[in-house]
Amino acid sequence: MTKVLDHGHVELYNHCANDLSVVNSARISFDQRRESISDKDIGLINYLMKNRHGTPFEHNMFTFDVKAPIFVVREWQRHRIGSYNEMSGRYTELPAQWYIPKPENVRARVGKPGAYSYVPLQSMDDTGAAELFCNELDASCTISYSRYKTALDDGIAPEQARLFLHVNHYTHFFWTVNARSLMNFLNLRTDATAQWEIRQFAYAVEYCFEVLMPQTHKAWLANNRVAP
Amino acid sequence: MTKVLDHGHVELYNHCANDLSVVNSARISFDQRRESISDKDIGLINYLMKNRHGTPFEHNMFTFDVKAPIFVVREWQRHRIGSYNEMSGRYTELPAQWYIPKPENVRARVGKPGAYSYVPLQSMDDTGAAELFCNELDASCTISYSRYKTALDDGIAPEQARLFLHVNHYTHFFWTVNARSLMNFLNLRTDATAQWEIRQFAYAVEYCFEVLMPQTHKAWLANNRVAP
Amino acid sequence: MTKVLDHGHVELYNHCANDLSVVNSARISFDQRRESISDKDIGLINYLMKNRHGTPFEHNMFTFDVKAPIFVVREWQRHRIGSYNEMSGRYTELPAQWYIPKPENVRARVGKPGAYSYVPLQSMDDTGAAELFCNELDASCTISYSRYKTALDDGIAPEQARLFLHVNHYTHFFWTVNARSLMNFLNLRTDATAQWEIRQFAYAVEYCFEVLMPQTHKAWLANNRVAP
Amino acid sequence: MTKVLDHGHVELYNHCANDLSVVNSARISFDQRRESISDKDIGLINYLMKNRHGTPFEHNMFTFDVKAPIFVVREWQRHRIGSYNEMSGRYTELPAQWYIPKPENVRARVGKPGAYSYVPLQSMDDTGAAELFCNELDASCTISYSRYKTALDDGIAPEQARLFLHVNHYTHFFWTVNARSLMNFLNLRTDATAQWEIRQFAYAVEYCFEVLMPQTHKAWLANNRVAP
Repeated sequence: MTKVLDHGHVELYNHCANDLSVVNSARISFDQRRESISDKDIGLINYLMKNRHGTPFEHNMFTFDVKAPIFVVREWQRHRIGSYNEMSGRYTELPAQWYIPKPENVRARVGKPGAYSYVPLQSMDDTGAAELFCNELDASCTISYSRYKTALDDGIAPEQARLFLHVNHYTHFFWTVNARSLMNFLNLRTDATAQWEIRQFAYAVEYCFEVLMPQTHKAWLANNRVAP
Repeated sequence: MTKVLDHGHVELYNHCANDLSVVNSARISFDQRRESISDKDIGLINYLMKNRHGTPFEHNMFTFDVKAPIFVVREWQRHRIGSYNEMSGRYTELPAQWYIPKPENVRARVGKPGAYSYVPLQSMDDTGAAELFCNELDASCTISYSRYKTALDDGIAPEQARLFLHVNHYTHFFWTVNARSLMNFLNLRTDATAQWEIRQFAYAVEYCFEVLMPQTHKAWLANNRVAP
Repeated sequence: MTKVLDHGHVELYNHCANDLSVVNSARISFDQRRESISDKDIGLINYLMKNRHGTPFEHNMFTFDVKAPIFVVREWQRHRIGSYNEMSGRYTELPAQWYIPKPENVRARVGKPGAYSYVPLQSMDDTGAAELFCNELDASCTISYSRYKTALDDGIAPEQARLFLHVNHYTHFFWTVNARSLMNFLNLRTDATAQWEIRQFAYAVEYCFEVLMPQTHKAWLANNRVAP
Repeated sequence: MTKVLDHGHVELYNHCANDLSVVNSARISFDQRRESISDKDIGLINYLMKNRHGTPFEHNMFTFDVKAPIFVVREWQRHRIGSYNEMSGRYTELPAQWYIPKPENVRARVGKPGAYSYVPLQSMDDTGAAELFCNELDASCTISYSRYKTALDDGIAPEQARLFLHVNHYTHFFWTVNARSLMNFLNLRTDATAQWEIRQFAYAVEYCFEVLMPQTHKAWLANNRVAP
């Protein structure tokens, strides 16, 4: 399990993924099968990646157990080729966990529409605005959470009491995905234009991909991290 | 456009949907085509629905423009067979709109796990807990929004400033879906066990479906609102 | 590997599938996890199946290596939630294998449109029509295959030479699918109204499902073999 | 309706597709909507295409009525993001239509694995091998079709009688698809490495796309015909 941000994690719960399945699903075009990976097969993986033959990268699966803030999960669950099950705020009392950035990770946005970039606010400001933001956000979430608890105590249904909670509250979900869809996720969510917070989760996902399918991962890097 | 809840809406932006396309995509099994719907064709639509022949209900589309609170949209976007584009809190300053239930719509949950139901809190409580909940929620969201604005003024990137916002904040999205996936959405989201708030949106969606594909809608009702 | 028909097979090439993943992806709704299956969990699997909560059945995978006649594969590949890679008649010389039914499996169709059923032709005919059909079909395919080979020898591109081949020619493919999609496949393709030949393949697939996910299989049977 | 090959066609049966829907589904990121397309919007379409923002191209649909040979349809139906309904050889007697290439379209394959190309056989051979191939293929299909008819007359079920038919027999289907999936289809099926026969169908499909979404089509061409 990899810890991510202040209370989050990425855990590989289940998997069936290796480079050999890429080779064998591709070689079935020629009615062939290999028992292990040769240099020629590594060349084949590169050829498939470069020429965008995507289907051989689908015969595998990763199931991740993820704990992440809602605003991160909102971006994550827009990826439709994959399976999700998530903790329910209608049926479960949500734990007291929300994401507060570290002051050094508070960012200012610079540049123009279509070409934004981000710099640490502390590099531009020495009045303590970053610390203030973090402190006020935490104070605000603390109060909101206590109102959530009070509403529950007052008999308000959990599905409505949760309206007090902020979009940085943590949630918890299972995600099952194949390598093709995973590479597309990583392409978009490890990109420099992706929000820094989801990138931290994407790096943890990428690590599992790299360990289980090292040749596929290398070929994907060589293809500029674009999914086939 | 149908107004939903306090600031939301469902608008049919574009569509290409009629009962005839169901008939003709089914009749291609027999290499036949109709120019208009007959009673026999209505019988065919019922037969397809009852026997769960789903594909003839896919040759059509509805595009909706929806404004809804984030906690509603979170459930909505778990429906993967369809297309979404949504307002971005990274690129746009979110308007000052959040969902506050009317006091008469504040609910208590009764019953046991697996068999919960909901009753108006006012029917069980005359101490004003429902009004208090609504007032405190609105006050809390008002303060949070002003802190969001202050954070933006202080130069915090919008993607982080938004962490002040609650899950009842309104967002805005396009949704394109075919009738088969739509019926599945309606089956789950107009059900008595669905959260009351998403049901209000689902009813507005159902109305568009009923107007454009009346025979398909009737057959779906006759099939206990289960999608084929 | 299970032999199916005269030259076909179904082989489970890879898998990551068990009942526990169903339980744990469902229990994440309540932020819980189990290490092994209890009687209560079996009840949960039944509850999910009966109430059509489909997503917990998606966190698993089966990869099958299948050899089957083209007319069977045409029905198979209409199932879109899954992954396919197939032998290519453009790049590979297809082996001399085509499906010839046994005379006792040659069928007559009885009944009316919407309510057809099938009976052995031999039960209705003692003139040897079934044997004749099998012999003529085999003779026809034998001649066609030799013309295919001659065309290849004459320098015709394989992608065109193959036009000599019949829809009962064998092909070979990888199929990766999760249990939810698998149950839908089995519901349709083991049904009495499905063509007898694809049913034989579906039974072999079902056997693998039953072995790896016995409680899910039982719950599916109890739910009239309808996928959630 | 566009005639394709000897007996095939591509007909646009229904559609709801224009460039404006691309612009408006993208502009919802900024909570904006346009009533008509400006030069700035054309720039936006190009930006989306180049930067692989795919979802704005999904809010539209094309339904095609296609008649094509089975070996072409086999490649077509491997495209999973779309909807299909097809004439059934189990329920309908298939018409006497099969594809025979013109002699000038009979091809030889040259080059090596991974780098094949195709040249007219007539350019390499003056012994009439191309004509012979066409004549023999037609004769073979004619005999096979008469055996199919005889089998039907003998009471063999259509689902088995059809085993006499070849993979170049015509079939008939409805296909519904959005522009994003359509562009992926066209990228693969109009490519020089695609089989010549499916390319003829893809060109007819592309023409409809170009007429209905001219700016999107231009942007796609400028993006090397790669789908976003």
